Amino acid sequence: MQAYQSLEVRFARIASIEDALGILHWDAETMMPAGANEGRADQLATLRGLAHELLTTPATGDLLEEASRDTGSLTDGRQANLREMQRLYLHAAAVPGDLVEANSRAVSRAEMAWRSARKASDFGMLKPHLAEVLSLQRQIGDAKGEALGLSPYDALLDSYDPGLRQATIDPLFDDLRAGLPALIREVQAHQAERPPVEPLRGPFPVEVQQRLGEGLMQAVGFDLSRGRLDVSLHPFCGGSTGDVRITTRYDEASFVGALMGVLHESGHALYEQGRPEEWRRQPVGLARGMTLHESQSLLIEMQAGRSREFVTYLAPLLREAFGGTRSAWDAENLHRIYTKVEPGFVRVDADEVTYPAHILVRYEVETALIANRMSIDDLPEAFNAGVRDVLGLEVPNDRLGCLQDIHWPGGAWGYFPTYTLGAMAAAQLFDAACRAEPAILPSLSTGDFKPLRAWLRANVHAKGSLLSTDELLQAATGQPLTSEMYQRHLRRRYLGTSA
Amino acid sequence: MQAYQSLEVRFARIASIEDALGILHWDAETMMPAGANEGRADQLATLRGLAHELLTTPATGDLLEEASRDTGSLTDGRQANLREMQRLYLHAAAVPGDLVEANSRAVSRAEMAWRSARKASDFGMLKPHLAEVLSLQRQIGDAKGEALGLSPYDALLDSYDPGLRQATIDPLFDDLRAGLPALIREVQAHQAERPPVEPLRGPFPVEVQQRLGEGLMQAVGFDLSRGRLDVSLHPFCGGSTGDVRITTRYDEASFVGALMGVLHESGHALYEQGRPEEWRRQPVGLARGMTLHESQSLLIEMQAGRSREFVTYLAPLLREAFGGTRSAWDAENLHRIYTKVEPGFVRVDADEVTYPAHILVRYEVETALIANRMSIDDLPEAFNAGVRDVLGLEVPNDRLGCLQDIHWPGGAWGYFPTYTLGAMAAAQLFDAACRAEPAILPSLSTGDFKPLRAWLRANVHAKGSLLSTDELLQAATGQPLTSEMYQRHLRRRYLGTSA
Repeated sequence: MQAYQSLEVRFARIASIEDALGILHWDAETMMPAGANEGRADQLATLRGLAHELLTTPATGDLLEEASRDTGSLTDGRQANLREMQRLYLHAAAVPGDLVEANSRAVSRAEMAWRSARKASDFGMLKPHLAEVLSLQRQIGDAKGEALGLSPYDALLDSYDPGLRQATIDPLFDDLRAGLPALIREVQAHQAERPPVEPLRGPFPVEVQQRLGEGLMQAVGFDLSRGRLDVSLHPFCGGSTGDVRITTRYDEASFVGALMGVLHESGHALYEQGRPEEWRRQPVGLARGMTLHESQSLLIEMQAGRSREFVTYLAPLLREAFGGTRSAWDAENLHRIYTKVEPGFVRVDADEVTYPAHILVRYEVETALIANRMSIDDLPEAFNAGVRDVLGLEVPNDRLGCLQDIHWPGGAWGYFPTYTLGAMAAAQLFDAACRAEPAILPSLSTGDFKPLRAWLRANVHAKGSLLSTDELLQAATGQPLTSEMYQRHLRRRYLGTSA
Repeated sequence: MQAYQSLEVRFARIASIEDALGILHWDAETMMPAGANEGRADQLATLRGLAHELLTTPATGDLLEEASRDTGSLTDGRQANLREMQRLYLHAAAVPGDLVEANSRAVSRAEMAWRSARKASDFGMLKPHLAEVLSLQRQIGDAKGEALGLSPYDALLDSYDPGLRQATIDPLFDDLRAGLPALIREVQAHQAERPPVEPLRGPFPVEVQQRLGEGLMQAVGFDLSRGRLDVSLHPFCGGSTGDVRITTRYDEASFVGALMGVLHESGHALYEQGRPEEWRRQPVGLARGMTLHESQSLLIEMQAGRSREFVTYLAPLLREAFGGTRSAWDAENLHRIYTKVEPGFVRVDADEVTYPAHILVRYEVETALIANRMSIDDLPEAFNAGVRDVLGLEVPNDRLGCLQDIHWPGGAWGYFPTYTLGAMAAAQLFDAACRAEPAILPSLSTGDFKPLRAWLRANVHAKGSLLSTDELLQAATGQPLTSEMYQRHLRRRYLGTSA
């Protein structure tokens, strides 16, 4: 019991350092003057180093061993907390310090090279740097895999989403891949049958977009006394425990991205703000993993935010705020804008139906590369072949192909699948929520998220990391992660079929 | 040499933690949502604890001892750096951890009690908490004094201003005290002989004040690529090395405070931005102490910013920005507004002539309390007697008396004198600068601070902590700290005498 209590103190300190890092990172993206980069890098590296030392010092290992010999005296919550502590320790201690450092340096170089290579649309410029990052990611996968008894790719997955395995993903993605190309064609044909969508014409003043965005945050239930909305180049949800900071970006020519972006980040933020207060600064109080995190942003943005009910509420608000008069501002037309499907090259611009195609391509490529089944020389070709297969598009250059995302040069291997797994979990959770609480959908048509938020808080947010992802989904929806509700949702929304 | 190099690495880490603390503190005062207080307190306490541990761990003491046995191989700069490392170590290691913690807790309680006591104007509400802080400050003074071979009060002074001693302050302040009451009366009589100052009438829109403030920052030479201006309740200069963040507050009824506040904090910021780049993240690269720091803010705000030359430049700018038409906007009237003298109860609202009177009162009281020559029961009475003596005013209540400042409940004993010593150093440095560089004053009348800034950078900012305060003043002005130029400045500006 004493060992356990010492661990709580130690992990609370680590959490406070992580929280400080969250604020410093937010500041770097939103407030920091351009010339302060170097000093900020020193601060981040120093604090990350201190957190890593506190976590991996042999004293932590000794305490964990001692505490795990005496779990009988611990409550269930504490046992779960101890399990999460062990998980974090295993992940961190598995990778030798010089490998961590080599990876960090290689990632910095590769990200820099990526910016130039993308601008020049020249994969050759990135290749040697990416090869180095890949080799180090394989080594990290090996090292973690050995400590955790997992394959290298599973070990990388496990860093972002505890418990996630390739064996879980494969059947879900195979299933998706089998039907997706046909579904995309079918949806396009279906949409082509209808009269064209009426475009909305700007400019849409930033102040009005910002006011509407803050209104949406409040409607969703974002607690503004424990968070903020600001502007950054790439929207994100960050900050620290109890101080959640989301960002968006504004385009005077279109409000569509900024407002849906606010809903998306607010979904992440609700999860962060709803984590269990009694486990504040403890590992078991953290969000469960990236699949569930992404499920919360997509549930708010895609499931609720683009539902016919919510768009019916939103349309007159927008019309009034921007002084719109034409029929383009009608709910029906706005819903069609928000659900327009069109295959394109860029993942972050993709609609709900074509988005998973981008993920399938990346998943196939990165699993082959990590498993040494593919050479990095073949990456662009394999990437383009995938896009051709699933989206039916011919990638014209690397900029619109394998150079578009920062994830691989940034060292985030094993991250991409969680986007689409999150979309599946979102559909599954929303379906269960609407069945359990019939007030949810009608409430959305009055802009009221309370019934939905209450269900999410009880069934997802307040669980922290007490359960595994599958245990949580089982308890909340009656089954583990499946693509069934997701596929049904897509057919229903985009083809109008009722099953 | 190896020990010295290990120390540089260690102190660079400490500096990065301090820099992170600077940003977190800035964020708390400017951006943080109200509900995030508790989490931020955890972050600050954790990082402060880590910095303190790194500094006071026995390994640091061992390295310092080893490095100091082999100073022959070190350059002068490194020897100075080692001396500053030793100073920081001695100060930190002298105070036992439980005393640090007891003080921190007592200060939190006393600050809380102070807010209520000030509101209620009831010293009795603060007294037990202040007694506790005083007792702990005495213990800290004793502990540091023993380690440094100093009296308790000198040891406290030394924390804020290395090398400053009561024996230096006493003659300077005695001299001031002997002449100040008469000077104040004389200046008031002198100003009463002239027609009344014409008041400026608002409102003065915040956006205009902000634009003017940023213009002043740029004129002064604040590098906006390595800093920002924001709003906070109490203006300050903070942030981190190479990322200096100043704040001000706006009042639509008057721009006088906000704009002079920006000049004041910009003076602090120039010092921070001008610290020696080659000693970045090392103790010898830090600003020398609070006397010199305050000298830089007062030099920009009081010496340069309220000079007839600069006000001549400023007046038409203000007139244009605010659309002023009456003769109240003439440079002559504006200068009289900025140099109006009137004894009052509140230190932070005091003009340049009466300000030192407030400091004399506080210095006499706090030295007596630390030396156990006065009981805390007698504080209000002693404070009011001091105000009566020097300012000729009868303090009507504790709110306007000994409860007005946060310093004492906040544990900042030995800090007050640096305000007035800074004013003295400012006059001395400005006098020397103008003699050494005759372009300084004429340049100010065109809003050009470059000649002044160049002199300050070379003679003050770029010295970091390489010299002691007196060595720096000796090198820059030909003498150690004296009140001569300060008294001459006051007589010249406020009585029009030329000597």
